[in-house]
This record gives sequence, C-alpha cells and structure tokens, in this order.
Amino acid sequence: MPVGLAPPQQLYPVKGIRLAACHSGIKADAQSADLTLIEIAEGSTLAAVFTRNRFCAAPVQVARDHLQQSAARYLLINSGNANAGTGQQGMADARQSCQHVSTQFSVPVETVLPFSTGVIGAPLAVDRIAAAIPALAADLSEDQWLDAARGIMTTDTIPKAVSRQLTIDGQTISITGISKGSGMIRPDMATMLAYVATDARIDQQALDSILSQAVEQSFNAITVDGDTSTNDACVLMATGHSQVAIDADHGQFIEALNEVFRLLAQAIVRDGEGATKFVEINVANAADVRDARQMAYTIAHSPLVKTALFASDANWGRILAAIGRAEVSRLDIERVNLYLGDVCLIERGLPDTNYREELGQREMSKQDIVIRVDLGLGDASARVWTTDLSYEYVKINAEYRS
Amino acid sequence: MPVGLAPPQQLYPVKGIRLAACHSGIKADAQSADLTLIEIAEGSTLAAVFTRNRFCAAPVQVARDHLQQSAARYLLINSGNANAGTGQQGMADARQSCQHVSTQFSVPVETVLPFSTGVIGAPLAVDRIAAAIPALAADLSEDQWLDAARGIMTTDTIPKAVSRQLTIDGQTISITGISKGSGMIRPDMATMLAYVATDARIDQQALDSILSQAVEQSFNAITVDGDTSTNDACVLMATGHSQVAIDADHGQFIEALNEVFRLLAQAIVRDGEGATKFVEINVANAADVRDARQMAYTIAHSPLVKTALFASDANWGRILAAIGRAEVSRLDIERVNLYLGDVCLIERGLPDTNYREELGQREMSKQDIVIRVDLGLGDASARVWTTDLSYEYVKINAEYRS
Repeated sequence: MPVGLAPPQQLYPVKGIRLAACHSGIKADAQSADLTLIEIAEGSTLAAVFTRNRFCAAPVQVARDHLQQSAARYLLINSGNANAGTGQQGMADARQSCQHVSTQFSVPVETVLPFSTGVIGAPLAVDRIAAAIPALAADLSEDQWLDAARGIMTTDTIPKAVSRQLTIDGQTISITGISKGSGMIRPDMATMLAYVATDARIDQQALDSILSQAVEQSFNAITVDGDTSTNDACVLMATGHSQVAIDADHGQFIEALNEVFRLLAQAIVRDGEGATKFVEINVANAADVRDARQMAYTIAHSPLVKTALFASDANWGRILAAIGRAEVSRLDIERVNLYLGDVCLIERGLPDTNYREELGQREMSKQDIVIRVDLGLGDASARVWTTDLSYEYVKINAEYRS
Repeated sequence: MPVGLAPPQQLYPVKGIRLAACHSGIKADAQSADLTLIEIAEGSTLAAVFTRNRFCAAPVQVARDHLQQSAARYLLINSGNANAGTGQQGMADARQSCQHVSTQFSVPVETVLPFSTGVIGAPLAVDRIAAAIPALAADLSEDQWLDAARGIMTTDTIPKAVSRQLTIDGQTISITGISKGSGMIRPDMATMLAYVATDARIDQQALDSILSQAVEQSFNAITVDGDTSTNDACVLMATGHSQVAIDADHGQFIEALNEVFRLLAQAIVRDGEGATKFVEINVANAADVRDARQMAYTIAHSPLVKTALFASDANWGRILAAIGRAEVSRLDIERVNLYLGDVCLIERGLPDTNYREELGQREMSKQDIVIRVDLGLGDASARVWTTDLSYEYVKINAEYRS
C-alpha cells in the first residue's frame, strides 16, 4: 500500500509527444504492459541524466552514446528485464532494439534511445520487442500518458504520473511526466525511470540547466535505503509546440516544473518497498550545501532512525547519534536544534525542557513526518524524502527470488 | 541466539589487574550486574580510543580529560545508563562517580576513568554507585574477568571474553580482554566497550601504536548497520608484571594481541541484533586502503545485500550494484572478480561462465559467509565483518521502548 499516494489525476497531453504501450511478452503476465514507445516531434530538445552506478546497464551506455550523436526522436522502454550484467550481447541487444524502431520510422538509429528496467543478468528478448513495434507505432497518440506510466512499472504498486498546465503570455503550456520505481532500491528488479515533457520551447543549454536543478531537488533527494540502481534515468523533453519560449530563469515555469519533478520523485518514496511512513528530513543553517545533504542522508539512511519511525517512536537519542556521526565539515553540538514537526526535541544540544513524550508521540503517529535539524552555523539547507524500515521491507527483499 | 559464538573459555588472570562486578541498582533486574571496577597496578601503561561521534557522552569527555592529566589506576564502568544527552549534570555525575573511587583508594580523582553504557538521556544514579564502591573494592581479585564481562553487558545475550597466553624469552605472558555490544548499533541502549590487558611491559608510545593498529583491524572493521554510538571506548592496559618488555614491532606478541582484539570484535557482530549470519567482506587489490575499506563498507551496509544474506540468496546483482556505487577513487569494472567463498560469481566484470545457481546457493546457506571482491587495481586490501538484516533486527529496534 503506497503511503498517501492516489492514482494519477488528469494528465494533460503535451503537443508534440505521442505515446503507446503494450504487452510484448518480456513479462510473463500477459495483462502487464512491458514495452513503451515515446515519439518526440522533430525540432524538440531533450536533456537526460543517468545512474552514477559504474556497473551501468547496456541501454544506459547505448542511450548516452546515441545522445551524443543526434537529437532523440524515439524513446523505447522495456520493463521486466534490465539488460544489465549482460556483457557484449547486452550491448548488441540494446542497439538491435533501437534498429527495429529506426527501420519502422525510417530514422537514423542514433535518434532512438533505449531504456530497460527489470531483472539483472537475463538476456533481452529482442525478437519479442521487434515483433511488437509495428503495432506500437500504429497506436501512438498524445493521450496515452497513463498507459505509458503503466508500461514502465515493475514492482510498483501504482502508476505514477503528474501533470500541470500554466498560462504564460496568454498561452497554455503543459508539463506532464511519469516515473517508476519502488524506491531506487532494488538493483535487480530495479530502477528509477522518469520521463517529463513540456510543449514549451527551451533551447538545449537552458534545458540542461533546468533538468539539472530539478533533479537535484527531486530524484536526487529521495532515498529508501541508499542503493542506486544500474539503470536509473531521467529525461526531460521540450517540444516547443506551444510556441512559448522559456529560459532557465523563468520563475513561474521552473516552479511548476519543479513541482512535477518533486511529486514524481515523492511518489517513488511513497510507493517504496514496505513503506508505512513518508518522511521529510529538513536540514537548515548548515555550513555548506554538502554538509546539509550529508547530514540529511545520514539521518535518512540510519536503520535505527528508520525502525523508530516504523514503530512511531519519538526516539530522539537515535536521531542525535546519527547527527553526531555525520561526516560533515562543521558541527557544533551546542548550536543544534532538533524538531519533530513543530515539536522541539533538542534545543542547543540538550533535551528541550518543555518536551514531553506525548508531544513527540503525537507527531510520530502521523503518516507524513517531518524531522527538522537546525545546525545554527551557516545558511545552507537540504531536504530529502525517505521511508521507514519495516518488516515488510525485509520480507520483500529477502523473499524476492526465493 | 549468537551466530557461532560459545561462552568464554579459560580466561587467564593478568598480573597487576584486579576486577570486581556487582549489582548496584542501576539496572532494574537485581540478578544483573551493572557496576564493574578494574584496578590497574601502579607503573602500568594504558592507551584508549573513544567514539568519533560528536555527541559523545559525559563519561567519554571526563575520561579523555583525566587521561591527559594522569596515569589511570581505576576504570569504573556502569551498564544500564549511558549518561549521554545529560548536559552539565551528566558531567558532574561522571566526575562525582570518579570522586567516590578516588576517596575509597586515596588516589587523585584524575587516576579514575568513568565509562557508561545503556539508556540515553536519563540521569545517572550516582548515590547507588557510591553505595556500592566499598564492597566492590573489597571484592577485587585477579580471576574475575568473566564477572567483569557480565557486568558490562546491556542487551548482549552472552558475555564476551578472550584470553591468550604465550611464551616469550622463557616467560609466560597473558593477554585477556572483554567486550560488550550487540553490534555498535544501538545508540540508545548503546555502546561498544572493550578492555584488554596484558602483563607485558610496554612503553606509552609503543602501546598507543599497538592499540591503534589492533583497533583498525578489529573494532573499526565491524559493522551491523553503520551506526556509531555515543559511548564507544576501547582500552588497552599493560602492567609490565611479567617483566617481559615488548615493543611495537614484536611480531609474536602483536599477532596474539590482534587475535584477542579480532575475536572480541567479532563476538560483538556474532551477537548482533537479529543476526543469523556472520559475514566477512574481503576486498583485495584496491588502488589504496581508503578505497578498499570504502568498498567493503558499502557492501556491508547495503540493506539489499543484507536481506539477500538473510534469505541465503546468492543474489550477485545486488553485490555488483553495491560495488558499482561505492565512492572509490578508482574502479575498472572489467577487472572486477567477485567470489562467494571459493565460488567465482563474476570474472572480469561479467557472470562467470562456470557459475551455476546451486554453487552460490551452497555457499549462501552456510552460517559463516565470505564475500570476496578482487578489484585488480593495486595491492591494498580490507576486511570487515558484519551480519545480515533480519525480521528480528527490525523487531528488536522497532519494539524497543514501545
């Protein structure tokens, strides 16, 4: 059960983007879509970021390579198989999949980007992909974002999609995106994937910069257990079909886009394996941004903090101990304030004299929890989102494959 | 149930060290010893290392302070209360406890070092400690190492003590040590503590150096979940009563001492919360030692690897993904070999062609498991010991305090 996450609401089409999804036979379950095709109108711009894991999968390597050579026109995404740990055959399979799309649409193979998510170490059934492409091509339409969101799912319990419209200079601009992942946390059934498109016109340099800042405060700010998958990818497309030009400083647009990214990222955490809580860790007044993020992640990854969250136990000793061991450049215990929601637990390094167990207990019993740390040193801050650590997490990850 | 850990065997007395333990009333259970006193003969040397957690407890601060002023003669260790997060009152309580020992034996207060382990944030019952000291003093004897091992326990399920004798220059030297901790992993009922003594004569400089290298390959090479407590301490004492002088290069002595340290450290992991496996992570041929340790800890802390270990699942995809995301200076995937026991899983970055699932399964089903990673880059190596992540771990840490 995802934590406070409803099925996608209205998804606005993005002019210049067409999508289709189908069951090609990669997944065993014939009811599950496993192949998704996204068509991007000519003249669009596209920016992408990929996993930093050095064991990156074949499709990641091929996508990076193709992106350097040409503007992308098609994204081909299969679920059910990660095409990772598959060596030279995996590289050939990823290229071959692109070739089939290239032939179908008579475009250069470098304009096709492959993405895979699923089991590591199994060969990709390229023949099934090839057989499915003509029907996928015939089915492309602007209003199938929800189908695409379903097509990229693996262990996700709910499709993830977010859409916003805004009016700029009297014109309507749409931003719609989909994501998948059950917490970036399963390198074998793995992968965080996200695709966001807008019909604004954005040049390549601005798009790169917009994607980079958006990812930093969304997909790079979520964690379930600190494991990064071999296949993670996030793609931002701008078709320009709305005729509205946007630069990297456009506050209204950036704000809406960041909201789409943040909600897509948070959806992954809310659907995280075994999650019963959705937790924001908010670090303020750190000496620098690196310290702020380091502190936030140290708390977010602490199994002791996570099990206390699962137990709804306002165990401030565990949070303090995590703060104390964080590898930050500066920490002055006597300046540290710690809050659970609005309740002050620690003031200037010592238990707050007004604190009572039932106040902390009340905050901890909520489904959405905010842990706030004020380091009192500088003006850098960071926010990360995570889950608790439950029996169910252990069960899911221990029983998988067994 | 500890993993492959028997109760302590014969414990040799160390000439110049006397010990006693009793129930003073800090713990609720009248059957549980909670106060331990160790007397160190005059003229001994002593070296100590303490937690790196910046939220360190009052006794750690007082012990550090006393050590700088004087040679230590008495160690006073209470279990059941960590005297951490207790502010100025905690500092006064730690000093006051030392004062009672100082008065009892007519020695300067700076010759007494305090240690505490247990619940964070509760005031220390100094009056109970004071009341117990005369009887403890009267009870001191050389053959109560096992009582001391019991006296420092908190959530440990078994006392931890190791002893070795060796003959050097025709003389018998004893090395005996005790440790406690259920995995360095419980900052609230917390704490790894260890006390090792020898009757060899070792000067201060050599003792510091010997302790430092011994800790590096024992207590600093174990992890259950990466959480460092607020009270960790490790003390090495050398009384010189055997009349055998040892320097920092004495191979035979160092080897025996390191074995005592290693076994005491491993005992903590074997008694780790919820542990069902004892796991060695062995990283070889890294570019440098920092990389080797970083790689070993990244694997050891991965919840996905740990849940696979719990499930006895030879899930090499999870280990590969952890290797790939480790923050090391150099990693060349095509040089990586990965073994489970003697079974090769990955050769030069790809699944070994001779590997079959049942070979990995056989290794994973063992109680003691070795994961070996050969990075093929340099000649640096590291070994760390850890446990799996079980339902029981979540249960213990979620239900504690509830």
